[in-house]
Amino acid sequence: MKTDLAAQAEMHIPKGYDPRLFKVRHSAAHVMAQAVVERFPGARPTIGPPIEDRFYYDFDLPRPPKEEDLAWIEQRMKEIIKGRHAFSVREVSPGEARELFKDNPYKIELISELVNGSGNAQPITVYQHDTFVDLCRGPHVPHTGYIKANGVKLLATAGAYWRGDASRQQLTRIYGTAWKNRTELEAYLTRLEEARQRDHRSLGRRLELFTFSDKVGPGLPLWLPKGAALREALVSFLKKEQLRRNYQPVITPHIGRLDLYRTSGHYPYYKESQFPPMEESEGEGYLLKPMNCPHHIQVYTHRRRSYRELPIRLAEFGQVYRYEQTGELGGLTRVRGFTVDDAHIFCRHSQVKAEIKDTIDLTLKVLSSLSFEDYSVQLSLRDPEDTGKYTGRAAVWDEAESAIREAVQETGLRYVEALGEAAFYGPKVDFMVRDALGREWQLGTVQLDYNLPERFDLSYIGPDDQRHRPAMIHRAPFGSLERFVGVLIEHCGGAFPVWIAPEQARVLSISERFEGYATSVYQQLLSHEMRVRLDVRSEKVGYKIREAQSEKIPYMLVVGAREADSGTVRVRARSGQDVGAMSVPAFVNRIKEESAQAR
Amino acid sequence: MKTDLAAQAEMHIPKGYDPRLFKVRHSAAHVMAQAVVERFPGARPTIGPPIEDRFYYDFDLPRPPKEEDLAWIEQRMKEIIKGRHAFSVREVSPGEARELFKDNPYKIELISELVNGSGNAQPITVYQHDTFVDLCRGPHVPHTGYIKANGVKLLATAGAYWRGDASRQQLTRIYGTAWKNRTELEAYLTRLEEARQRDHRSLGRRLELFTFSDKVGPGLPLWLPKGAALREALVSFLKKEQLRRNYQPVITPHIGRLDLYRTSGHYPYYKESQFPPMEESEGEGYLLKPMNCPHHIQVYTHRRRSYRELPIRLAEFGQVYRYEQTGELGGLTRVRGFTVDDAHIFCRHSQVKAEIKDTIDLTLKVLSSLSFEDYSVQLSLRDPEDTGKYTGRAAVWDEAESAIREAVQETGLRYVEALGEAAFYGPKVDFMVRDALGREWQLGTVQLDYNLPERFDLSYIGPDDQRHRPAMIHRAPFGSLERFVGVLIEHCGGAFPVWIAPEQARVLSISERFEGYATSVYQQLLSHEMRVRLDVRSEKVGYKIREAQSEKIPYMLVVGAREADSGTVRVRARSGQDVGAMSVPAFVNRIKEESAQAR
Repeated sequence: MKTDLAAQAEMHIPKGYDPRLFKVRHSAAHVMAQAVVERFPGARPTIGPPIEDRFYYDFDLPRPPKEEDLAWIEQRMKEIIKGRHAFSVREVSPGEARELFKDNPYKIELISELVNGSGNAQPITVYQHDTFVDLCRGPHVPHTGYIKANGVKLLATAGAYWRGDASRQQLTRIYGTAWKNRTELEAYLTRLEEARQRDHRSLGRRLELFTFSDKVGPGLPLWLPKGAALREALVSFLKKEQLRRNYQPVITPHIGRLDLYRTSGHYPYYKESQFPPMEESEGEGYLLKPMNCPHHIQVYTHRRRSYRELPIRLAEFGQVYRYEQTGELGGLTRVRGFTVDDAHIFCRHSQVKAEIKDTIDLTLKVLSSLSFEDYSVQLSLRDPEDTGKYTGRAAVWDEAESAIREAVQETGLRYVEALGEAAFYGPKVDFMVRDALGREWQLGTVQLDYNLPERFDLSYIGPDDQRHRPAMIHRAPFGSLERFVGVLIEHCGGAFPVWIAPEQARVLSISERFEGYATSVYQQLLSHEMRVRLDVRSEKVGYKIREAQSEKIPYMLVVGAREADSGTVRVRARSGQDVGAMSVPAFVNRIKEESAQAR
Repeated sequence: MKTDLAAQAEMHIPKGYDPRLFKVRHSAAHVMAQAVVERFPGARPTIGPPIEDRFYYDFDLPRPPKEEDLAWIEQRMKEIIKGRHAFSVREVSPGEARELFKDNPYKIELISELVNGSGNAQPITVYQHDTFVDLCRGPHVPHTGYIKANGVKLLATAGAYWRGDASRQQLTRIYGTAWKNRTELEAYLTRLEEARQRDHRSLGRRLELFTFSDKVGPGLPLWLPKGAALREALVSFLKKEQLRRNYQPVITPHIGRLDLYRTSGHYPYYKESQFPPMEESEGEGYLLKPMNCPHHIQVYTHRRRSYRELPIRLAEFGQVYRYEQTGELGGLTRVRGFTVDDAHIFCRHSQVKAEIKDTIDLTLKVLSSLSFEDYSVQLSLRDPEDTGKYTGRAAVWDEAESAIREAVQETGLRYVEALGEAAFYGPKVDFMVRDALGREWQLGTVQLDYNLPERFDLSYIGPDDQRHRPAMIHRAPFGSLERFVGVLIEHCGGAFPVWIAPEQARVLSISERFEGYATSVYQQLLSHEMRVRLDVRSEKVGYKIREAQSEKIPYMLVVGAREADSGTVRVRARSGQDVGAMSVPAFVNRIKEESAQAR
């Protein structure tokens, strides 16, 4: 019986989570709860699961824990671990469970739900180690010695509400982590510290990349000069790539009549995630655009199209607006106004495969130019068990799915197929990118669409002089510029490659005597369209260098007597490396070459 | 008495209108009315004033006039003119006036207004020539011979409502024009025809620069690929200029909380000309931004500012939205969504003059780069008689007005001072530009502002460690990009200078045999970031050339056997000029030089 229960419990390990670490962390949470109850008699444990890289437990405590309480608890956990206490599991009846936890109203509530909650007769199980018994479905390690004392650490405390409901009891959450050994723990703590230092919200503030204003509204970033320069460098890079690939720029308004979004299906279907309409007296109102596609379709339909013109690739860095809930907003990764590096390709069905290949090629070019080397590709297809939820005929889907699969295969990329993950209007390719800290982000996307061409009755005149329906591809290599820049800031810790750095170089004079020469160097660099600043303050040059380094400026050009005499600059990299003396044109060439190589 | 009345009538000539031509056209309107009444017994003349370059008269007619009626009327006018009939004026009593016009309810309505309308006792005058008597305040020429028979022409008819009120009687408006002689008439008709051919709405359609969509909404232009390319060339030109002059780019959202616009004073004060607010349930709502200034102020205030940082020049090509009445919308010159090439300069009062000079210099650079050679500058100052309507202390205004006047003077520009034309928040400089057809447009503007810094309580820390209030300068060399492009299209008749041309060159193959070579030429040009297209259709090259010319492509590169053998292209200008054969790199250099010279 016992073995069966333990085996069943393994089911509860989330897909993709290392089973051993899951059980170690889950068990560490119980060990922590035992220590907390010993430190705070009368403490009531509530729930305590493992989460990514960590675990927590929420308690109803008689008083908030202090620094010394946490130190005591961590110490006591190590003792319990060393005691090698076995974890045992047993099934209990509802009555027995209520008796066991009669002093803990939280557990009583959970027990009631287990009994009444669902029609399925779920067994109620309790796990015990040493003196601590918990209502728990497992799984756990065989004994506490499987947790490693030098792999465990308490991280932080925070407030939390019972069942996440702000109207209910406030609890104390204690976070901890557990790893296989000290080395892994320390590696994790280092990553955590790096992530803290690389947090794009604090770097964005410190490097003056963007800001928010209460008067403008939450989730609506204002790009400060340096952030705007960075963003423009990204935009102009992609614009050049697109020009080379025969994309055509368009510029469309940020609003449209409600009628447009009724036709597209965005309104009222997605009403909850949109800003409310502007209701004028004479018409039926305007909506802030949640997507660029309906506008690009208006460009496509402004006149009759011939098959000779296809594919038509319309591109726009189009700012769109969505009404995310305030609680979900944070930095650049979730905002209410963002810019999609959007393009819509209108093409014949026979052109779909070649177009998809080119969009994948472009997306990879974007990622590699920004040193995202570690990415994977997900091919999202229909759910073969539930084809009814997709729009369009099965034959068209078959054709679309083979085209998109072949395109991905021919690029030679490793990819996974995800059945049932297609959009209702067509299959798609998503790019999952791993950043320098090993975290995964969904960035670029390529989507095939048979729905909007239908809804807007799009057509082109074929070689047979008949009307045909084009296919439509939505694609965005960056995804959202805001989100991409947020991820990029953390990926490179604010030390941007020189070709997108908001300030590429700073000219520093050694003393006031060289202000004239420093200014002439600065002017020369400006005339080469470099993003450069001049620091001729009467500060010590060491101070100026440290300041520029902390602002992560790629190059510092130091000028004093020797440089002024020889018409050179002394180049220092932000890494601290002394690159040496060179003429201004030589430096300009160096930057141009470095930039060209990166792209 | 008669002389007095005629002399008084001269007052009614609008400022800037040639007095002789005004009287000639006003008299021609009477002569036309006489002819119309003769042609249509029972016709009731209503009103008929001179307008710019033309005159019209609105009639209540028994039936719509046909082509032959108009020919008869024009012919009859020439006879009346040759009759040298004197214009006589006399004052009449209200009773006498009512008796004279008892069959014309329109004139009776006008007489009642003259009698009851205002407290001022205005004399009622009638003018007579030959058999025609009209209720009229003048002035007129001494006799009909002053109008020249060969300087007169009827132009068009149109529908019009009595008093411009769509709920009242519909009338027939007949337009005519009158000039000193045949030569001037013909010159005018030529200008009219040119303007028709250059009309940016029809050129915009024919050259595929922009379009409108009912589903998006009236007055909201969608820039088609060629228009977007043109616009981007203008934007990137100004961006480079701004970078050189130490402007800093910012990018801000297209909406803001109502509260922001209450502080700025844009809401509810200008409510009528704005799109209605988006009213969400949780806050007090958002407004589509009617101006960029409040957002740029949020960038300024995101942290404390020191005098060392000033001037701060924040620039954005910021799209704004205003709710113009539908009737006022037309092409690009009046729209509901437009892009201001906006910048806001925050500076110390002592820096105002130098900043104004630099903004003027930049505006002139923009105008001359686009061959607007004929412009004038208006310096708009306070009304010294009514200083109460301006915000800010007199001493600050004195200082501001001297600074702006000195700045204008030091640029050596001819300018006029317009008293009472300042904005309520500060003096300004407006650029009035004359296009190739001699029409005047208000484009760029530079405005000093002491109001918003006050409303938003802006400050910087001075050398004395105290808070000081900065001055703010709004400036936009293009003004609105939409309006500017509209004017530019008409100015150059769609034949844009090569550096902004949407398509700079087209490669034309003489026959299918040279498709390979044509394609390689095209690829080379693309790699130099030229905006270029390839025409390898199996059409006659003469046909391809004519098509490219009608699309006003600056250069056509024709390639056949000789070119393929020698690795050259044969260059034709859109003017028809044969520029000769040259290598592709030589052609690229030529374009680069031509572009650099223009800028």
